[in-house]
Amino acid sequence: LRRPIIGLVGAGRFATDEDKRIGHELGLLIAGRGWVLLSGGTKVGVMDASCKAAHEAGGLVVGVIAGKDSSRMSEYVDIPIFTGMGSGRNFINVLSSDVIIACGGMVAGTLSEVALTLREDRPVVLLNGEPDTRALLKRIGGKLVHIVDTPKQAIENVAQLLNLQIPEEINGNREGT
Amino acid sequence: LRRPIIGLVGAGRFATDEDKRIGHELGLLIAGRGWVLLSGGTKVGVMDASCKAAHEAGGLVVGVIAGKDSSRMSEYVDIPIFTGMGSGRNFINVLSSDVIIACGGMVAGTLSEVALTLREDRPVVLLNGEPDTRALLKRIGGKLVHIVDTPKQAIENVAQLLNLQIPEEINGNREGT
Amino acid sequence: LRRPIIGLVGAGRFATDEDKRIGHELGLLIAGRGWVLLSGGTKVGVMDASCKAAHEAGGLVVGVIAGKDSSRMSEYVDIPIFTGMGSGRNFINVLSSDVIIACGGMVAGTLSEVALTLREDRPVVLLNGEPDTRALLKRIGGKLVHIVDTPKQAIENVAQLLNLQIPEEINGNREGT
Amino acid sequence: LRRPIIGLVGAGRFATDEDKRIGHELGLLIAGRGWVLLSGGTKVGVMDASCKAAHEAGGLVVGVIAGKDSSRMSEYVDIPIFTGMGSGRNFINVLSSDVIIACGGMVAGTLSEVALTLREDRPVVLLNGEPDTRALLKRIGGKLVHIVDTPKQAIENVAQLLNLQIPEEINGNREGT
Repeated sequence: LRRPIIGLVGAGRFATDEDKRIGHELGLLIAGRGWVLLSGGTKVGVMDASCKAAHEAGGLVVGVIAGKDSSRMSEYVDIPIFTGMGSGRNFINVLSSDVIIACGGMVAGTLSEVALTLREDRPVVLLNGEPDTRALLKRIGGKLVHIVDTPKQAIENVAQLLNLQIPEEINGNREGT
Repeated sequence: LRRPIIGLVGAGRFATDEDKRIGHELGLLIAGRGWVLLSGGTKVGVMDASCKAAHEAGGLVVGVIAGKDSSRMSEYVDIPIFTGMGSGRNFINVLSSDVIIACGGMVAGTLSEVALTLREDRPVVLLNGEPDTRALLKRIGGKLVHIVDTPKQAIENVAQLLNLQIPEEINGNREGT
Repeated sequence: LRRPIIGLVGAGRFATDEDKRIGHELGLLIAGRGWVLLSGGTKVGVMDASCKAAHEAGGLVVGVIAGKDSSRMSEYVDIPIFTGMGSGRNFINVLSSDVIIACGGMVAGTLSEVALTLREDRPVVLLNGEPDTRALLKRIGGKLVHIVDTPKQAIENVAQLLNLQIPEEINGNREGT
Repeated sequence: LRRPIIGLVGAGRFATDEDKRIGHELGLLIAGRGWVLLSGGTKVGVMDASCKAAHEAGGLVVGVIAGKDSSRMSEYVDIPIFTGMGSGRNFINVLSSDVIIACGGMVAGTLSEVALTLREDRPVVLLNGEPDTRALLKRIGGKLVHIVDTPKQAIENVAQLLNLQIPEEINGNREGT
């Protein structure tokens, strides 16, 4: 079975220290579960913090890069996929992640990735404190939007969603043991 | 000088009758100004209504199509650009429009296009009545977000934004006459 | 009925004077038929020459642009579609053209577009004098590759291919009258 | 330092038994060197054969997938990147590979990837017996085209090219030891 790929989206140059701290903790937890971390892989903000944490913890870090080369890329990306598509690559992040976690203060790029996730009828785990963002995304995404308050809750929620995606017969067998 | 290209984004299969009525009026007004209408070009909702109105009024209608063929395309598209990229084509809509108008109730696809527009530091004219959508996008986009209440106001706002985009020396000469 | 869209691919900065002369003649002929000219829309070589000719003859010129802005774009493009995808946009050119004409000496970018056209089981009209290029593409593409010697022959061949694409019942009716 | 990523392009459904045998050997050799194997990741032909060999030998296999899901994907892909872009993803393969190897009989999709590689001024190792293909690509690509006769020669050539790409100061130090 393939290792689950968890997409992490969050602020880049506008990330606060708290955003980065959360990114770092999520990177650690994702690597600790044996999951692959996927992100836009830039060398700032939530992306850089999570790539560093996951990479240093021995995890595997995939970056779906906006540019054609590594000039703006986090040095902690293990597998860079260069798209040369700018923010057009956001849709590839969405399609390539088993589950997306959106964390920290909502900026335009992150919002586009959450919206594209919902557009594809895929779940998103929203680790975010702004009440109006929560309300709007919940209204648009309904049951697809999972709101959590801590990185640990986010990871628990992802684990449940991954379990749901196991085909029923396998899942049934597993529960039978 | 090239004709301005105005991008229109709005609900597809979830569009209300009111959404479609607004789309129809915007299509008429865009064609009436001699502007090119650009959209995702699907055969439902705001896109179909605006394409029909603009095409029948003698305007030029460009569709940046998600699929590889015309099976889901509005029959009122004059110039189809087939991307085969699904919602990945939303970024092309954003880059190719001089100004984007977002209209009607906010759905996930529309929200992704508005977010990508703001991500690119480009203006969006938001013709939308939901207070929480307005508040969130205004907080994220600041001066880039222009909120209006009617199709006519939207068109006036677009005209002002197009004027702003004329290089200063030309604009100065024009105002001097 | 929509106007046919004819894609023209050929050398850019490496174009010879003869390549540009052929591009110019093709642009004139495409506009003269009332067809839309589509190309990568850069301001050099075959693309610029054909865009200029078609635009000045009153034709409609679509450019599927590699960049995000008009800095490298031919000034004769009427409808620019900005992809920001670099040569990744070549596939969009292929999908969006009813027929592709490849002209002049074969360079890498042109070859990629011809190859993608054949990959999609679509016809290409090859106006090109190099025997080894003709032989290789004919072996790979078989009946999809139409080899011609002059711009006029290329246009005649395109007209036949457009006619073939009319659904049989319509075509049948037409021939019956 | 990141592990080198080697892109392998070759025939899919039209692959001969010999093409698949070469793909299998290349997959083994790439994994044996500790390099990452990257390809279009479909479940037929050269791609499937090389993915299987590399995966079973303990290598890491990245697939840049044309579709949005795994329905046509080789089961031996470890890291699937779903683009939903069809053959538009070929450009991503090119940008994401440190070196591209093209092997087996030349089909349209493979030719498009080789041409895009040359368009980007990147080297390609061509393991291919058709004289006209060799001649054409050599004329178009010049020094970028490295022609070899066996999988082992291909791997040796890739190793030399990777070595060339090491920044001078590092390379100098290494040679000094």
